[in-house]
Amino acid sequence: MVAVPSTSLLPTAIVGASGYTGAELLRLLLLHPRIEITSISAGRAAGRSLAEVYPQFRDRLSLPIESFDAKAVAAVAEVAFVALPHAQSAKVVDELRAEGLAVVDLSADFRLRDVAVYDEWYGADDATHPAPHRMAEAVYGLPELYRDEIANAKLVAAPGCYPTSVILAVAPLLKAGLVGPKGLIVDAKSGVSGAGRNPSQVAHFPEVGEGVRAYKVAGTHRHTPEMEQELAAICGRPVRLTFTPHLVPMSRGILSCVYSEATSADVSTQSLQTTLEDFYHDKPFVSVLGQDALPDTSFVRGSNRVHVAVRYDERAERVVSFAAIDNLCKGSSGQAIQCLNLMRGWDEELGLQAVATFP
Amino acid sequence: MVAVPSTSLLPTAIVGASGYTGAELLRLLLLHPRIEITSISAGRAAGRSLAEVYPQFRDRLSLPIESFDAKAVAAVAEVAFVALPHAQSAKVVDELRAEGLAVVDLSADFRLRDVAVYDEWYGADDATHPAPHRMAEAVYGLPELYRDEIANAKLVAAPGCYPTSVILAVAPLLKAGLVGPKGLIVDAKSGVSGAGRNPSQVAHFPEVGEGVRAYKVAGTHRHTPEMEQELAAICGRPVRLTFTPHLVPMSRGILSCVYSEATSADVSTQSLQTTLEDFYHDKPFVSVLGQDALPDTSFVRGSNRVHVAVRYDERAERVVSFAAIDNLCKGSSGQAIQCLNLMRGWDEELGLQAVATFP
Amino acid sequence: MVAVPSTSLLPTAIVGASGYTGAELLRLLLLHPRIEITSISAGRAAGRSLAEVYPQFRDRLSLPIESFDAKAVAAVAEVAFVALPHAQSAKVVDELRAEGLAVVDLSADFRLRDVAVYDEWYGADDATHPAPHRMAEAVYGLPELYRDEIANAKLVAAPGCYPTSVILAVAPLLKAGLVGPKGLIVDAKSGVSGAGRNPSQVAHFPEVGEGVRAYKVAGTHRHTPEMEQELAAICGRPVRLTFTPHLVPMSRGILSCVYSEATSADVSTQSLQTTLEDFYHDKPFVSVLGQDALPDTSFVRGSNRVHVAVRYDERAERVVSFAAIDNLCKGSSGQAIQCLNLMRGWDEELGLQAVATFP
Amino acid sequence: MVAVPSTSLLPTAIVGASGYTGAELLRLLLLHPRIEITSISAGRAAGRSLAEVYPQFRDRLSLPIESFDAKAVAAVAEVAFVALPHAQSAKVVDELRAEGLAVVDLSADFRLRDVAVYDEWYGADDATHPAPHRMAEAVYGLPELYRDEIANAKLVAAPGCYPTSVILAVAPLLKAGLVGPKGLIVDAKSGVSGAGRNPSQVAHFPEVGEGVRAYKVAGTHRHTPEMEQELAAICGRPVRLTFTPHLVPMSRGILSCVYSEATSADVSTQSLQTTLEDFYHDKPFVSVLGQDALPDTSFVRGSNRVHVAVRYDERAERVVSFAAIDNLCKGSSGQAIQCLNLMRGWDEELGLQAVATFP
Repeated sequence: MVAVPSTSLLPTAIVGASGYTGAELLRLLLLHPRIEITSISAGRAAGRSLAEVYPQFRDRLSLPIESFDAKAVAAVAEVAFVALPHAQSAKVVDELRAEGLAVVDLSADFRLRDVAVYDEWYGADDATHPAPHRMAEAVYGLPELYRDEIANAKLVAAPGCYPTSVILAVAPLLKAGLVGPKGLIVDAKSGVSGAGRNPSQVAHFPEVGEGVRAYKVAGTHRHTPEMEQELAAICGRPVRLTFTPHLVPMSRGILSCVYSEATSADVSTQSLQTTLEDFYHDKPFVSVLGQDALPDTSFVRGSNRVHVAVRYDERAERVVSFAAIDNLCKGSSGQAIQCLNLMRGWDEELGLQAVATFP
Repeated sequence: MVAVPSTSLLPTAIVGASGYTGAELLRLLLLHPRIEITSISAGRAAGRSLAEVYPQFRDRLSLPIESFDAKAVAAVAEVAFVALPHAQSAKVVDELRAEGLAVVDLSADFRLRDVAVYDEWYGADDATHPAPHRMAEAVYGLPELYRDEIANAKLVAAPGCYPTSVILAVAPLLKAGLVGPKGLIVDAKSGVSGAGRNPSQVAHFPEVGEGVRAYKVAGTHRHTPEMEQELAAICGRPVRLTFTPHLVPMSRGILSCVYSEATSADVSTQSLQTTLEDFYHDKPFVSVLGQDALPDTSFVRGSNRVHVAVRYDERAERVVSFAAIDNLCKGSSGQAIQCLNLMRGWDEELGLQAVATFP
Repeated sequence: MVAVPSTSLLPTAIVGASGYTGAELLRLLLLHPRIEITSISAGRAAGRSLAEVYPQFRDRLSLPIESFDAKAVAAVAEVAFVALPHAQSAKVVDELRAEGLAVVDLSADFRLRDVAVYDEWYGADDATHPAPHRMAEAVYGLPELYRDEIANAKLVAAPGCYPTSVILAVAPLLKAGLVGPKGLIVDAKSGVSGAGRNPSQVAHFPEVGEGVRAYKVAGTHRHTPEMEQELAAICGRPVRLTFTPHLVPMSRGILSCVYSEATSADVSTQSLQTTLEDFYHDKPFVSVLGQDALPDTSFVRGSNRVHVAVRYDERAERVVSFAAIDNLCKGSSGQAIQCLNLMRGWDEELGLQAVATFP
Repeated sequence: MVAVPSTSLLPTAIVGASGYTGAELLRLLLLHPRIEITSISAGRAAGRSLAEVYPQFRDRLSLPIESFDAKAVAAVAEVAFVALPHAQSAKVVDELRAEGLAVVDLSADFRLRDVAVYDEWYGADDATHPAPHRMAEAVYGLPELYRDEIANAKLVAAPGCYPTSVILAVAPLLKAGLVGPKGLIVDAKSGVSGAGRNPSQVAHFPEVGEGVRAYKVAGTHRHTPEMEQELAAICGRPVRLTFTPHLVPMSRGILSCVYSEATSADVSTQSLQTTLEDFYHDKPFVSVLGQDALPDTSFVRGSNRVHVAVRYDERAERVVSFAAIDNLCKGSSGQAIQCLNLMRGWDEELGLQAVATFP
């Protein structure tokens, strides 16, 4: 049961509505009791009807898809979600901020604090960050770590899908000093929606539908520096981790498995379990599973929830922790709305109470 | 955006919470602004925690799963959803009605108006209907056909998943006399959740995960008389149809394709299209697609929405109509809640406004 | 156990090796005891290594992929399989025939006997058939109907995937006069590999991976005239059928369900069953299932086998017959090799004895 | 092209034909030019026809499924494949060996050299190994490591599916001393057929079809000691590894990712790559991918092939190696036949030349 006092509605814009994260924003915001979607824009899809681009919205939302224009958006919206590819996003964010809108950006453009690191990982040829002067005002939008900062921010950078799951799986253990930053290994499995909506051989059904593979391994995936930045911030020491993302034949979901080394012989299953439970007891979207269960993306699918668990492998003296999320929801659009809730002083869970659609 | 005035909450029981339709009821009712779930019962799962049986509810709903007891349910609930296997259900419904509860039954027990037909299709050995005296008070819970009757009912029989999709695909055309009851053929494709949660070879992943097959063909599937009953009622003449259900490797969704014969040479694409649009213009969950689109279960997945379409095959002089639904939602639990909304005089869409979770 | 006397090998070319049917030809021919692949050509993939284009051939076949040149092919091969898109194919076939090669063409270019029908369905703008003078020498490559003609042919047009399954499901019944050509309805379900290897939104995993939909319905799919041509030839009367293809989330397989009307009251389950069994008793790849089983694409996957079954729906007085095939094997490349076996006077099953890869 | 001189056929028995590995043996042996299947036995399936249990064999193999009797098997077969659950298997193997048959056992019963380790991991309650006196004569059936020993064996224990992939991914690097045994981590992803054919909630389509999860983590999976035994033998030092198996929504395939630590600063991408290539240059089923490709189970599906690759993560100073296999083929039945080929002095690849069925 959900009891929501409805008062005035916040006029809200979606920029980049034609991608999967844009569609997920629309899906979730249609259920949000304090939001009114007043502007939808996109690139190539501009001029088409939403029902044509995404038939699930037929007879549910009939706003036209427009080309982006910052002043036009500012005329009808107070806040904007920007769901554009990196580099494109920074420019749009800069314009919207200049118009005074609060912005949640779902791209990678404002996640990294160091512009040199951004340019190294995201710069093509000689390209550099399009709006480096905005980086200082951006807050990393992981509410489980930065709830207060997000509440006071005007520009929030929603985290990447892989980093969200990885950080939530291991940050409390690092913070408590139970495991160390050395030797961290992340083995993650993602659904295919992470590849976006543009057709490609990598996401062509007959190529990906009945197999599993790794990609961008050994320090080549762009989410690597983002994870390292946040885990380093948590433990106060530099982090170099090995990250191996995999593609799994399902549409949604990420399961991350993080291998770490205990810092002392005192580390036990019990201390690990308690540390997670203590850290997450006031984080409404995170469930810490017990020693009798393990996370499964099926049970968070379509929801903003996170299932985490930890095990101590006594034979090998190693800690293994897990997090399952929906990459499009808690890994992207749901988390962006969670951030907006904090920015507005609303209940963190507002509009995001749905449990997984299972089966 | 959803603006819901919250006042008092209706105490509600779920009987049969451990099956997929039970879980879907819980998922949807947790988002319903006028419902409070006060009782959950099940058979073998009684005594276990809900989070153990369905991990998606962890930290979201913590009611214990109890063994069914009509008086105990009546002590805490005013209405009950019964999601039990046929025959078991009728007995429970009878007890709950005797206690004065309004009931929405999701089983087949009160869908058929003729007890002899029920006994023929559902009776095992010499078994007969366990509560035939309740049949007269039951209303067939398809709001698009029986909105007023449902609004006045105390016992509603939620339709079967296949019949929901089939009736919605062709009833308006039959009613308008554009197509006749003779020669009706239904070819339907269902996701595997229709087989329920009990493991079986038929739903074992390696057996069903990468193939398609028909089952219970040529007049042997139990949903056949239900479709015939309702289509006959619509057109005022007896109906004998050929029904071929198929199992498709997806969890949710039914796509039904109905082949029918035009009653006159005047039937055209335009008249068929207009007839559907006219019939459904005041039915909030049904979208009539145009001649440029066809239903896809992906776009109704997880929602109570229905996508219908019709084509006239001029070469073969035949009408083909389609409906796509989510078998667990509009085909079962969502529709049951839609019925309750009508029974209570609430907005028909209350708590059911979600669009599909796509992708 | 397979006992094969190996003598001299037939030098064989594959034109169009980079598509899925090309790759399937390579897979099957590598296991054929009388074939040596001596030439591989393709369009855009020319110049790349086969292992790069199709990693499954790494260390198994190292021929370079060349641009097509008829004289170069003729210098090293006696027969050619052509697996190109329609229109492109006819031109290549014409050149290869002019060089004296025997050809099995997997495109649609030589399946239709009437060039006007071809131009109507396949002609774009003012385009017409590129090699109409070759049509007379082409034989329709369905060995279960045209074994002798194929044995004497120099140009065989391998049937389409849908027509193969549809014709095999109903031709014996039409031929025996148990069912008539009037009112034929075909409802077919295909795996996604039928869409080819070029990425497209229609075959993008997140769009197609967890749903089912119909496409090109009501007399708009190009396989319609091919089915009608062959079924008309079988029963000696014109055929107009309604054809509804569907896309199912699996890589391979087609299941066709054919609805037909019995021609007399004498038609029974037994007569239908016997008719199928009699017709197929000397067709080595076709299994007629009994009344206790129904075809499932899982059980023919990766093989050249066909599972057919028939039911009489007594309630609705209608005949329902089924065929399951692998669209890339019996529906395309396997059947092409079966034709070559006949053209060479070899055992029809040579190199094609594999059963399905199940699960 | 496959040129096979056919002479006399080896009469062969399959014990445990009703499981997936039994069916895979039948599928592969039907294509083997030197084998004649003369006996099929199973437990509960005894008395049923093979076509009923596995429809893919309809009209291809018509031997009756019998109850197991060692003397009856010995009367018609010289060799036997035993594909029974552990503990059951050892007893049957013992009887068949007493009758003089050569045996390839696909269970875990003869894989571990130390009976105490077997009893610790496989013993239920007080149960101990049923035939410890046979352990000494068993050879571990991984031809890439033990080709000569297998060639001289009368009892071969075919390795587990996970160990096959893991050992092949890292053994050459351990053997060459490029990586050390300390800190080994294995993260593996398996298709659902690994769960066997008995229906269970864990393999029920709606539960597993659209998600991913880990299971039996942190030193609890029974394949752990088998991997440790073989890797220790390779490098001459004890091995304790962390093993995390995952279940992925596909029928077949295992992808293992092995994380290891370089033993010196001299280790480079080039030395790792060369070491793999050198080790596998005379192993016909293993392909070493270059630095431009990564293994994908899709490209080994249905085949006995193995795709391995290695990367050096310079940033994190860690080695990551991969192997993709088909769990039922190279991970079980195909490898068992590969062993038999060696035991008989036949070409190692005989009957196993098929490439993957892709897509």
